[in-house]
Amino acid sequence: MAGILEKINIPEDLRKLGEDELIQLAVELRRFIIDIVATKEGHLGASLGVIELTIALHYIFNTPEDLLVWDVGHQAYGHKILTGRMDDFETNRQLHGLSGFPKRDESEYDTFGVGHSSTSISAALGMAIASNLKGETEKQHIAVIGDASIASGMAFEGLNHAGVTNANLLVILNDNAIGIDPSVGALKEYLTRARVGYKPARDNIIEALNFKYFGPVDGHDLKGLLKVLKEMKAIKGPKFLHVITKKGKGLKKAEEDQVKYHAPGKFEPDTGELLKYDTDGLPLKYQDVFGLSLVELARKNKKIIGITPAMPTGSSLKYMMEAFPERAFDVGIAEQHAVTLSAGIATQGFTVFCAIYSTFLQRAYDQLIHDVALQNLPVIFCLDRAGLVGEDGATHHGVFDIAYARAVPNLIIAAPSNEVELRNLLYTAQLGLENPLIIRYPRGRGVLKEWQLPFKEVEFGKGECLREGNDLAVLSIGNMAINVQKAIAQINKPGKIAHYDMKFIKPLDTHLLKTIFDKFTRIITVEDGVITGGFGSAVLEFAAKSGFRGDIEVLGVPDEFIEQGSVDELQEISGISVEGLRQKMKSMS
Amino acid sequence: MAGILEKINIPEDLRKLGEDELIQLAVELRRFIIDIVATKEGHLGASLGVIELTIALHYIFNTPEDLLVWDVGHQAYGHKILTGRMDDFETNRQLHGLSGFPKRDESEYDTFGVGHSSTSISAALGMAIASNLKGETEKQHIAVIGDASIASGMAFEGLNHAGVTNANLLVILNDNAIGIDPSVGALKEYLTRARVGYKPARDNIIEALNFKYFGPVDGHDLKGLLKVLKEMKAIKGPKFLHVITKKGKGLKKAEEDQVKYHAPGKFEPDTGELLKYDTDGLPLKYQDVFGLSLVELARKNKKIIGITPAMPTGSSLKYMMEAFPERAFDVGIAEQHAVTLSAGIATQGFTVFCAIYSTFLQRAYDQLIHDVALQNLPVIFCLDRAGLVGEDGATHHGVFDIAYARAVPNLIIAAPSNEVELRNLLYTAQLGLENPLIIRYPRGRGVLKEWQLPFKEVEFGKGECLREGNDLAVLSIGNMAINVQKAIAQINKPGKIAHYDMKFIKPLDTHLLKTIFDKFTRIITVEDGVITGGFGSAVLEFAAKSGFRGDIEVLGVPDEFIEQGSVDELQEISGISVEGLRQKMKSMS
Repeated sequence: MAGILEKINIPEDLRKLGEDELIQLAVELRRFIIDIVATKEGHLGASLGVIELTIALHYIFNTPEDLLVWDVGHQAYGHKILTGRMDDFETNRQLHGLSGFPKRDESEYDTFGVGHSSTSISAALGMAIASNLKGETEKQHIAVIGDASIASGMAFEGLNHAGVTNANLLVILNDNAIGIDPSVGALKEYLTRARVGYKPARDNIIEALNFKYFGPVDGHDLKGLLKVLKEMKAIKGPKFLHVITKKGKGLKKAEEDQVKYHAPGKFEPDTGELLKYDTDGLPLKYQDVFGLSLVELARKNKKIIGITPAMPTGSSLKYMMEAFPERAFDVGIAEQHAVTLSAGIATQGFTVFCAIYSTFLQRAYDQLIHDVALQNLPVIFCLDRAGLVGEDGATHHGVFDIAYARAVPNLIIAAPSNEVELRNLLYTAQLGLENPLIIRYPRGRGVLKEWQLPFKEVEFGKGECLREGNDLAVLSIGNMAINVQKAIAQINKPGKIAHYDMKFIKPLDTHLLKTIFDKFTRIITVEDGVITGGFGSAVLEFAAKSGFRGDIEVLGVPDEFIEQGSVDELQEISGISVEGLRQKMKSMS
Repeated sequence: MAGILEKINIPEDLRKLGEDELIQLAVELRRFIIDIVATKEGHLGASLGVIELTIALHYIFNTPEDLLVWDVGHQAYGHKILTGRMDDFETNRQLHGLSGFPKRDESEYDTFGVGHSSTSISAALGMAIASNLKGETEKQHIAVIGDASIASGMAFEGLNHAGVTNANLLVILNDNAIGIDPSVGALKEYLTRARVGYKPARDNIIEALNFKYFGPVDGHDLKGLLKVLKEMKAIKGPKFLHVITKKGKGLKKAEEDQVKYHAPGKFEPDTGELLKYDTDGLPLKYQDVFGLSLVELARKNKKIIGITPAMPTGSSLKYMMEAFPERAFDVGIAEQHAVTLSAGIATQGFTVFCAIYSTFLQRAYDQLIHDVALQNLPVIFCLDRAGLVGEDGATHHGVFDIAYARAVPNLIIAAPSNEVELRNLLYTAQLGLENPLIIRYPRGRGVLKEWQLPFKEVEFGKGECLREGNDLAVLSIGNMAINVQKAIAQINKPGKIAHYDMKFIKPLDTHLLKTIFDKFTRIITVEDGVITGGFGSAVLEFAAKSGFRGDIEVLGVPDEFIEQGSVDELQEISGISVEGLRQKMKSMS
């Protein structure tokens, strides 16, 4: 079938089509995405929901001259395919392949790199201000942002500033009532009222912020979209289009289970039926160990509260939200609020578990310092997806947390090396904690068959010798212990290489370190975080204080941004794969 | 004169007064604050503006059972004085004295420590959720927040969450149209319309977020305040009171020049006349060197843009805002937006100087990583008030920046040791930069008489030997060079102690370091930031790589929160004062 899609190399080609052909193009584009994501995996629902909007934007606006910013970027697959990346699309999210998100290096049509939410308004406003200064007053600047993302504080800051400028900024609200999980919050309720025709008599929130407001319009009515965009293009200044879309549009199962089809894994492209994976005998995911263990603990300890900023499914806090809805909250994409809310609750004697991805705690660094640590409130941060996360790539790796958290006084930072250790940390934390605590654990499956062992109390700040040896000491943190164990097993020289699982980055087990410094002259530290200021640095700091005179080799993520790929590939690149560790140990022992 | 104020030890005493006596109390409280701040210095205008509100809140609500959170806390002097701290108030902001901000350790009436803006709604909502869980449904939770602070994204996140809860939360908007500088943004314009009686016909922004909205009311009409607060106390769920106040109320000069009287220094208490300080011959402030130099550069380089999040006066970006209003922007208390906006502008080929306090860049750490550094956009962060800031205390010290920024790939981090170096860094940055750059400099006056020397290009990543020596090498960064120089001068043993001003924390001058490692076995590093992961750590990391076998002693701010005091006192506590350095050098040389 010779289609329309294959003739589109760049949006210029698209603009030669008639409006009726665009409707056929939408069918083909949807099909193309479904077929590839079905086998190559990736984010599905978001892109299916904006097919008409994507086509309409590139048709009406003169991209790449006009500047288009996609918020988060899960929804930008159609955009990528229409802007010269159809042939490469099957490499999506793979090492050296296309990024799963818009990325400036990849295409001139990707005006701003995204991944974390709610940046698009600020970025597009910056571009619009720049255009005004250049005298390019006809240039259009468009931010496409979802209803979950626009409720984040940063988006409000952008709107609040834009409203007092004469910037040529078009904000398009892609309102599908869901982010990764269903949207929450008062603004969402307000938008829902707007969807069903409730009209505040005089102005609405958006108009109150000095935007010209249009909509709501049906985001799957292509001709309707073309009409309103054409009309809005002629209007100067900040303007806002409210578009109602359906996430997963065009694939029945994806429309019906929008959470699962956000990133469904492999599926049968015609029916949407998910392929069955044989997970028998595989360890549980760390996320589920966290979520299920928290429910166990919350059943006995009524003081336990759970908080997540918009990741109930991803973090598995959903289990507690289902079991104890009055004590577990999804606060939306609002990391700053989530952390300070946790601090506020903690002042009243509750034990708050704040489940947040490592990369997203970057959004609440000040709140971690100023509201939690400075007041020494015993909030527990369950830092999910710490370390290299794989295919989500540079925007999402949880590699900075050790370095940035280590600088903060009062914090305890723990990294369990398996599921049972995670469970025991959770258990110990709710027995009575005198400091804020970070527990960092990786994305994906654990390493044990039996995870649900009886809870045991953990001693904070205490490491453990996993293997004795006389020649070289390897100090690891968190799940890096597994790679170290495998590498040592491969080298197979009993009695030579010692292995210490330090378990705590802060406080360091200085007693154990002293015995190591006394015994060894060669030490390797291993972490799945940046080596600049990380765990290895902590060991160096204590070594300097202790007058240690031997060699310390610090292994971890190098001082550069690491792209997407499988976790194994990225560990290889960072020199912390089993093979990388094996070679390093061999060269040093 | 036996007054009413001196009989008030705790708010309980206040509640025994008749309403008419409260009016007299307001007069006395205002007078008390003016008299003390006039001689002891501190923040003036904000507290004068909420005297009636403070009295009314403690009168109507049952503090400390009912929980009152002050946003930022500049306005909480009246609260401190009415809650048992009248006698200690003259120690305000001094070492071991009262904190300039509410602080949990200090009083049970200080329910949440503050300093940075826009945390109060999240904190109070957390407390209200906790009370609901405890079944304390009569308990009141009150956040008092200014119109500049409520425009920050974090406050929106709190409102957005509160609006879908049944929390007993009262948000009081203290609307005086000014933060430290006049408020900006679309929300501010909206609030201004509300002040003059414009009523959106059906609902307003606040009601759209599911709050019951009351006001605007006159914040200096004590009886009116009592009436509306009494009425609102009986209403359950999220509610909002819009109070119009005048910053500086009751001191004519403070009302007239609200920016200057935010923290006016010493003044004549009856007239408000500022005391004249003899500044002849004193060096200029670093802030002014930045602000004035930027104007010089912007005059020649039309590509220069200036951005500040709500600190035009404090950072001295005001000079560029006056000279080139179309190219310099105050975006309000919106650090996240400020950084990503800067990134957006930078994509279009402009050279953006983003002036932001070190402690406030913590608010935009993710944006620094994700929007600037990951895309390697050459934004220049002028990190004002880096290091120990003195009397503002623990919430405001700029001591984490070196550690948290050092972990971020692509960043260059520079620390000038005097005004001319600052100027030359600014100059060099706008010649054409390939990376994002942080320039960190301290609060207050520089060290040179002649600051306005002709611009000279700087080589990035290059340190300098300031003094030769053979016995001990002292490596300093930024203005610590001055303390080191003085300490060496006191020791007065020519040829023994070498002094290197490293100038760049990232990239390190590894060439220079190698020569130092070759020559010395004893090294001291000195920084005015946390030693955990800071500059000293960077030196240790390179030393480990280089196989250096000597002693490295890392001096800087210890791994604990440092309270308020003079900068000299706090440097003494941290061991980086001239005397502390002298002793350490002596013990090592």
